[in-house]
Amino acid sequence: MDYYTIRWSDGAVSLIDQRVLPHEVRYLRYDDYRALAQAITDMVVRGAPAIGAAGAYGMALAAGQSMAATADGVRQDLAVAAEVLRAARPTAVNLGWGVDRVWRCAQAATLSDGAAVRAAVLTEAHAIAEEDGRINRAMGRNALDLIPQGATIIHHCNTGTLATVEYGTALGVIRAAHEAGKNIHVLVDETRPRLQGARLTAWELQQLGIAHTVIVDGAAAHMMRTRKVDLCVVGCDRVAANGDTANKIGTYHLALAAHAHGIPFYVACPTSTIDFTLAHGDLIPIEERDPREVAVVAGTQLTPDGTAIGNPAFDVTPAGYIAAIITERGVARPPYVDSLAALRE
Amino acid sequence: MDYYTIRWSDGAVSLIDQRVLPHEVRYLRYDDYRALAQAITDMVVRGAPAIGAAGAYGMALAAGQSMAATADGVRQDLAVAAEVLRAARPTAVNLGWGVDRVWRCAQAATLSDGAAVRAAVLTEAHAIAEEDGRINRAMGRNALDLIPQGATIIHHCNTGTLATVEYGTALGVIRAAHEAGKNIHVLVDETRPRLQGARLTAWELQQLGIAHTVIVDGAAAHMMRTRKVDLCVVGCDRVAANGDTANKIGTYHLALAAHAHGIPFYVACPTSTIDFTLAHGDLIPIEERDPREVAVVAGTQLTPDGTAIGNPAFDVTPAGYIAAIITERGVARPPYVDSLAALRE
Repeated sequence: MDYYTIRWSDGAVSLIDQRVLPHEVRYLRYDDYRALAQAITDMVVRGAPAIGAAGAYGMALAAGQSMAATADGVRQDLAVAAEVLRAARPTAVNLGWGVDRVWRCAQAATLSDGAAVRAAVLTEAHAIAEEDGRINRAMGRNALDLIPQGATIIHHCNTGTLATVEYGTALGVIRAAHEAGKNIHVLVDETRPRLQGARLTAWELQQLGIAHTVIVDGAAAHMMRTRKVDLCVVGCDRVAANGDTANKIGTYHLALAAHAHGIPFYVACPTSTIDFTLAHGDLIPIEERDPREVAVVAGTQLTPDGTAIGNPAFDVTPAGYIAAIITERGVARPPYVDSLAALRE
Repeated sequence: MDYYTIRWSDGAVSLIDQRVLPHEVRYLRYDDYRALAQAITDMVVRGAPAIGAAGAYGMALAAGQSMAATADGVRQDLAVAAEVLRAARPTAVNLGWGVDRVWRCAQAATLSDGAAVRAAVLTEAHAIAEEDGRINRAMGRNALDLIPQGATIIHHCNTGTLATVEYGTALGVIRAAHEAGKNIHVLVDETRPRLQGARLTAWELQQLGIAHTVIVDGAAAHMMRTRKVDLCVVGCDRVAANGDTANKIGTYHLALAAHAHGIPFYVACPTSTIDFTLAHGDLIPIEERDPREVAVVAGTQLTPDGTAIGNPAFDVTPAGYIAAIITERGVARPPYVDSLAALRE
């Protein structure tokens, strides 16, 4: 099935509604940046690179919504929109990165009026979206040497086309290995609470014809102990300058299991996800989400009424547990404070 | 709310239906041992000590169902029932232990006719059920020194009254600490796939007034890294002679996280759960259950149609990750091959 995560057409942004996959393929259309910001918060669209592109297109919507005639008038409206969009999710750096990149582009002194700013903003948002597939394919190529023939790979959350604009990050690495004929098998962490693995990754792997088995998150260590597991590969929502990596809750738990078994644990990371302003991972803000994401599955409440629930959406994996960080510019190895800096533009 | 897990009355066994808790409190009544065996398989009743008692009462049902007049005639019918009951679940040793204990009791040469065998079998089943609360309270007392004042404790699966006949094993340890005024807080792993933590443990802790917070299984390591966690305590389905412990899937994963953080990981284990015939944990049979337990939650299928799913119900935690094994006869420390043998009757 052909599908897309995010697309601009006729002055609006269309998103596949990731909350109803895999059983329903539904697209929602946004022509208001505030509604799009809410869609990001509600996880209609999720995945660090995808919300980076969504943030950029949100700025394009805001520019289009601006009634200002002058360049500075549009910029004032964009400044408000940038705050709203940035606040939609706190952990992934890509959201702010996409918004900021468009924002900087809107500052060019050569933009003489509001229409010119609007055009420049949309052009930059398109550029961000278009770069994504190229970057992801480059990560896939760069990772090929890390994936043995016949590898069994554990993957957490969803990092495919649905988490990006095209091709995927960690799932792009897996896809590239598959396309190179490596005959891989993916153990798919279901990824509680929102089940991105069971719902989205299983669906994408099915479309791609890549062999896979869904497991509960707690079974990963058992799989490592009782069968051959060659590697883990995950995406990331923000990587600090020292390589500490924020990603979906459960990632750190998985990394500890891999470490205990001597299994390499890789992070696929477009360089836009590296936050060089943060020295280490404890500075990354961790989003605490609605307890109902844990308590309620498919409309049914599982826990007793009144149960206290903790729902951190992300965790931080210290760099010491990460064997390599795969980027579009190359594969970084420890010590990351040097190797990541070397990849910086 | 007063509730019970298993009770014999008027020649039948009543079980609380653990599949519909916490939202519905329903008891099911069994007067046929084959139906009871199916209820064990279907996890109407679960938890190693509880299915030990259920197996014993299943033998009592079978004795009552036997039409034989002679002692040997009843014994022949019991031999058939023992096979059926033992096969209901493969991993927990308690099921076979309860069945065997009743079976041995039925062999006594002094039992002169079928009625005498029937009476002896029921008496032994009652004895097994009645011992349970006493054993669990003793484990709780023996563990008190291991639980610091104000401790935060991670618990996996359900090990309370619902997993036993009375009081609980690991949850009994927690309960004893609470009753001793230790002001504890329990982080409750929801325990996918069947969510015994979210559904059953949260419900039992609520009844007991013990502070708790439910988390997804993948969040345990994050909790260890970002807040004070003092210890983990879990139950077990079978412990090998060297201390290797089979317990609900996700236990080993949790033990690895505890190990990485230097947090003691304890197993609460009635000595009936120790299988001295198995030298190590890799000899413990691991039940693979219906993939629909992972795919379907609350009647809704989460995964795409046709998705392959792995659903091992248990994992094995090597003894090296276990700080102590708490039994009703005392607390065993490594090396377990010696300390467990010393606890053997």
